[in-house]
Amino acid sequence: MATLTVGQAEGLVARALVRCRTSEVNAAVVARALVAAEADGLKGHGLSRVSTYAAQARIGKVDGFATPSVERRRPGAAAIDAANGFAFPAIEAALALLPEMTRAAGVACAAIRRSHHCGAAGHPVERLAERGLVAMMFANTPAAIAPWGAAKPVFGTNPIAFACPLPDRSPVVVDLALSKMARGNILAAKQKGERIPEGWALDADGKPTTDPDAALAGTMLPLGDAKGTALVLMVELLAAGLTGAHFAADASSFLDDKGPPPGTGQLIVAFDPAAFGGSDGHVARLIASIEEQAGARLPGSRRIALRRKAASDGLQLSDALLKDIEAL
Amino acid sequence: MATLTVGQAEGLVARALVRCRTSEVNAAVVARALVAAEADGLKGHGLSRVSTYAAQARIGKVDGFATPSVERRRPGAAAIDAANGFAFPAIEAALALLPEMTRAAGVACAAIRRSHHCGAAGHPVERLAERGLVAMMFANTPAAIAPWGAAKPVFGTNPIAFACPLPDRSPVVVDLALSKMARGNILAAKQKGERIPEGWALDADGKPTTDPDAALAGTMLPLGDAKGTALVLMVELLAAGLTGAHFAADASSFLDDKGPPPGTGQLIVAFDPAAFGGSDGHVARLIASIEEQAGARLPGSRRIALRRKAASDGLQLSDALLKDIEAL
Repeated sequence: MATLTVGQAEGLVARALVRCRTSEVNAAVVARALVAAEADGLKGHGLSRVSTYAAQARIGKVDGFATPSVERRRPGAAAIDAANGFAFPAIEAALALLPEMTRAAGVACAAIRRSHHCGAAGHPVERLAERGLVAMMFANTPAAIAPWGAAKPVFGTNPIAFACPLPDRSPVVVDLALSKMARGNILAAKQKGERIPEGWALDADGKPTTDPDAALAGTMLPLGDAKGTALVLMVELLAAGLTGAHFAADASSFLDDKGPPPGTGQLIVAFDPAAFGGSDGHVARLIASIEEQAGARLPGSRRIALRRKAASDGLQLSDALLKDIEAL
Repeated sequence: MATLTVGQAEGLVARALVRCRTSEVNAAVVARALVAAEADGLKGHGLSRVSTYAAQARIGKVDGFATPSVERRRPGAAAIDAANGFAFPAIEAALALLPEMTRAAGVACAAIRRSHHCGAAGHPVERLAERGLVAMMFANTPAAIAPWGAAKPVFGTNPIAFACPLPDRSPVVVDLALSKMARGNILAAKQKGERIPEGWALDADGKPTTDPDAALAGTMLPLGDAKGTALVLMVELLAAGLTGAHFAADASSFLDDKGPPPGTGQLIVAFDPAAFGGSDGHVARLIASIEEQAGARLPGSRRIALRRKAASDGLQLSDALLKDIEAL
């Protein structure tokens, strides 16, 4: 086990990506995103991704040199072409535009197409909330969930993320994949050689499995069964239908270096609270009514605690993971 | 059992409301909304509501004479004060504004406060989709769901609705309360003297119950457990936090004539697909990949079939329900 500061980890990852056909600028942005996920304890979106990202950049499944292009089509609408590069530079482009657009129009939206794995979906919306905006992100992912009552997966695990500013403290952040479990957790279990709990996934024949390989080859179970599958369809239509990105069934895997670019999509929506009827104090009262109850906690609070610990104590990397990244 | 045409049912409901301190204009709008829900088979949001609506109008818990006021605060933002009237006139005001605002700004949002029960949440978004827009609605309801791990309900059952236009056919419509079951279904069971299935709700002591009265006095279970509760919080913050409406715990019941007005909120967001990267044909391919699978069906398709049947064969009303409405 090795201990690295957040800055050291970012440097390690960025240097590895630059050696694998990625520009310095993009490598720094990607490294920051993966290390931030790792620091928040979201290992499925953290450093476990470095070797697959690097392998994809090396063969051009993701274009490490891509520059996202932005079209501001309406006062509240930006269409961003990630140009089959990593998602994070396109998300940065959206975050650079949205605050000003949202203040002017009241609500604004960035639609990202030809994109890639969006990582920890809570992070972009959290950064918008730190600027005083209420924000949502919808993303699609390669096919993993079947229509309710059917067998062939045509939806991703399709995360929904949401953040809302709170007075004098970190924003409240909701970030959840619509599968019962995030696919990244299965990947992390596979890398650690562990089995997964029953109820997360079905194998390719539609039977329950605890084997991460069988789960990755099969389908994920949605939260909330039929209702959850309707939410998954909604996110597919927002993140890929509205943006013009590949639907799940047309998206190649985020997890290997085979096939064309995934081409998935992300839709980020931001609201200026000052343009509507709410106020910081109003929201704070709801938050208090949650936190005053024994046993309850605010979504995202565990991440913030882990993030603080990583900032003060550094990140713990297994020797195997460190060796994998250094070997790139 | 009596059979009424849709028009006869609307007239019956509107006349009943007018006799209970509601303006002709508002009564017609409310009657249309309740009959549309009944025709779609959504009995919990249909004619079962007439007697409680009328009782609330009679004592002023809902102001049947209210006129919603609209402030267009930004190119994409409208704040609507429902003035403690029925929700439907305020929703009509939003639907009148949003298409033009959305075409101009790319995305637009109406935030409704001091509102009431929004009925079938799928209907407003469906009407926006019939105008070619992708639309979402978030609504909060009186307290029914506790924070995960806690006992006191501070969230409503908080529906999410979504609609997307499809080429040459009705829009796809997602409409779901975030409780495992809609509270309206429990009300309908109570009115029919039936028990509810286990798994829908907990009683006031947090124990599973099949008694609709015990369920209405207790809390609802969210779909997807902890993750679902995070979605419920998200909707509470969008529908009441952003709009300035009452949070669930401050909202009086939709189901009785006691206490002050509920004062709940609705947030409607509309996107112009032409402002982003998608197209009708793109979306149609996803829909085909669902419908070509045996056992799968599109959300909302059952409602449309029932609606057509109601239009041709009329609505079936029980004698008891008809007598209740005529007695008002």
